[in-house]
Amino acid sequence: MGGLHLIGLGLGNEKDITVNALEAIRDKCAHVYLENYTSVLAASPSKLEEFYGKKVTICDRAFVESNGVDGMLTQAEKEDVAFLVVGDCFAATTHSDLVLRAHEKKVKVKMYYNASIMNACAGSGLQLYNFGKTVSLCFFTPTWKPDSFYDSIKMNKVNGGLHTLVLLDIRVKEPTVEALCTGKKIYEPARFMSVSTAARQMLYVENEVRKEGVYDEDSIVVATARVGQEDERFISCTLKEMCRVNAGGPLHSLILVGTEVHELEENMLKHYRAKPEDFYPEGEEPESQYLEDGVL
Amino acid sequence: MGGLHLIGLGLGNEKDITVNALEAIRDKCAHVYLENYTSVLAASPSKLEEFYGKKVTICDRAFVESNGVDGMLTQAEKEDVAFLVVGDCFAATTHSDLVLRAHEKKVKVKMYYNASIMNACAGSGLQLYNFGKTVSLCFFTPTWKPDSFYDSIKMNKVNGGLHTLVLLDIRVKEPTVEALCTGKKIYEPARFMSVSTAARQMLYVENEVRKEGVYDEDSIVVATARVGQEDERFISCTLKEMCRVNAGGPLHSLILVGTEVHELEENMLKHYRAKPEDFYPEGEEPESQYLEDGVL
Repeated sequence: MGGLHLIGLGLGNEKDITVNALEAIRDKCAHVYLENYTSVLAASPSKLEEFYGKKVTICDRAFVESNGVDGMLTQAEKEDVAFLVVGDCFAATTHSDLVLRAHEKKVKVKMYYNASIMNACAGSGLQLYNFGKTVSLCFFTPTWKPDSFYDSIKMNKVNGGLHTLVLLDIRVKEPTVEALCTGKKIYEPARFMSVSTAARQMLYVENEVRKEGVYDEDSIVVATARVGQEDERFISCTLKEMCRVNAGGPLHSLILVGTEVHELEENMLKHYRAKPEDFYPEGEEPESQYLEDGVL
Repeated sequence: MGGLHLIGLGLGNEKDITVNALEAIRDKCAHVYLENYTSVLAASPSKLEEFYGKKVTICDRAFVESNGVDGMLTQAEKEDVAFLVVGDCFAATTHSDLVLRAHEKKVKVKMYYNASIMNACAGSGLQLYNFGKTVSLCFFTPTWKPDSFYDSIKMNKVNGGLHTLVLLDIRVKEPTVEALCTGKKIYEPARFMSVSTAARQMLYVENEVRKEGVYDEDSIVVATARVGQEDERFISCTLKEMCRVNAGGPLHSLILVGTEVHELEENMLKHYRAKPEDFYPEGEEPESQYLEDGVL
């Protein structure tokens, strides 16, 4: 028969998969693919292979842009195939293009949902009901500083004083300039935006570009770091303070707290209030965050 | 040492728990509690007990309103205690009050995130990025027809043409009128709002109460039914058609599709378009949805 099993791996290590999904991989699937360019799991592919007892094929950008997906769907016409996504399959990164292509080929699709930063950010104590539209923040360059996120934050604020989840840029397997010129397969080191970079970019847009007072240095924000992992952190402070918060390794997201805050939320924010040791030492300039080569 | 393990069970059966959470229950926890009044799992508590090899104590409204939670937290000061929540622990129903009370008692809290309707609704193909604030819809009574949800839908529409997830009322272990008068422990049968009831209530508010044209009979909506379970369904149609859609057993939610729809979303909506067999037969009046007594 065959079929495509779309499996969310959750946010932590190899054991944050659901039992149902694990059984599908172990007992049914002839081929296992791992989507590996929009997020990062706290477990290496080899760890996954060991835990599943199956070979795992990495799908990077090149795989998706080549005919790799077609090949996978052709397999799924006859055999059960698993497509693994860090977090949930549909939440932070949508894979509905894959579902539609499967439907075209009459391949049966089964989904295994899991946690995503889009719901697990509620571990901060801020209630999902009180969030407006989610936005994304890209790494700025000297010549490219997209600020469209500002409009959505404004909209969330004006309409009910809602919180905004700000998802931060991830650059995995980006070709280097040399690679682009020569066609060689050389990649930039994986790069993940930190909350301090995000806070500085947000203040830059408010103070230098838009100046509409949608937020300011005193706005309350929450850093979410490595949510779902053993060392997950939630840190609340002002946006100005966040520019110097050291939240540790990736992944980070940022929540801009709305103007309507429930008492329970207030108490959770107090609980997660930044402590002196959460900041970079005076004079140490925090940088955009890199992961060492080969970690992924 | 002790500690409180807050565990999301996901949306399907007993095997939608993560492997990490299952191991914590099996290997560490002396006591296991199940929060059982805000959602419904497609597995009975006895099924959970069998799968975990542990006794499961049901926490209903009475448990929470009595000093049951205090007793549980006192246990957690010395032993590992699991508190299980259908879906995710923080997404659709917040348990931050429990976390705060644990913090007060210096009880360590560990969270195990899982899928919730708040992210799994993206299985419909509608992208979470394009959702505004989530709203809840209560069962109307002859004298009580709360319509505050309408303002949030309006806000989501005006500001970016965003989708709205509408969570539907659940009534579990509600005392009967007789019980309220006599103090006896008699409960109404569990009751879950169906998408057809929700659609009729929404049209009532638009046509009879607010009349602001925020949506109408031709607005596109998506029914989500039993998301994460074997027989999950997504059905898209107009709001008028939804009044007669039979989406089967609970739980249902409804998505009011926004006015800005991406091409991929459009294609997924087509794929899930209601078929003739998805409607109640002509003349058969769809009722609010009940679960048989004892299913839960």
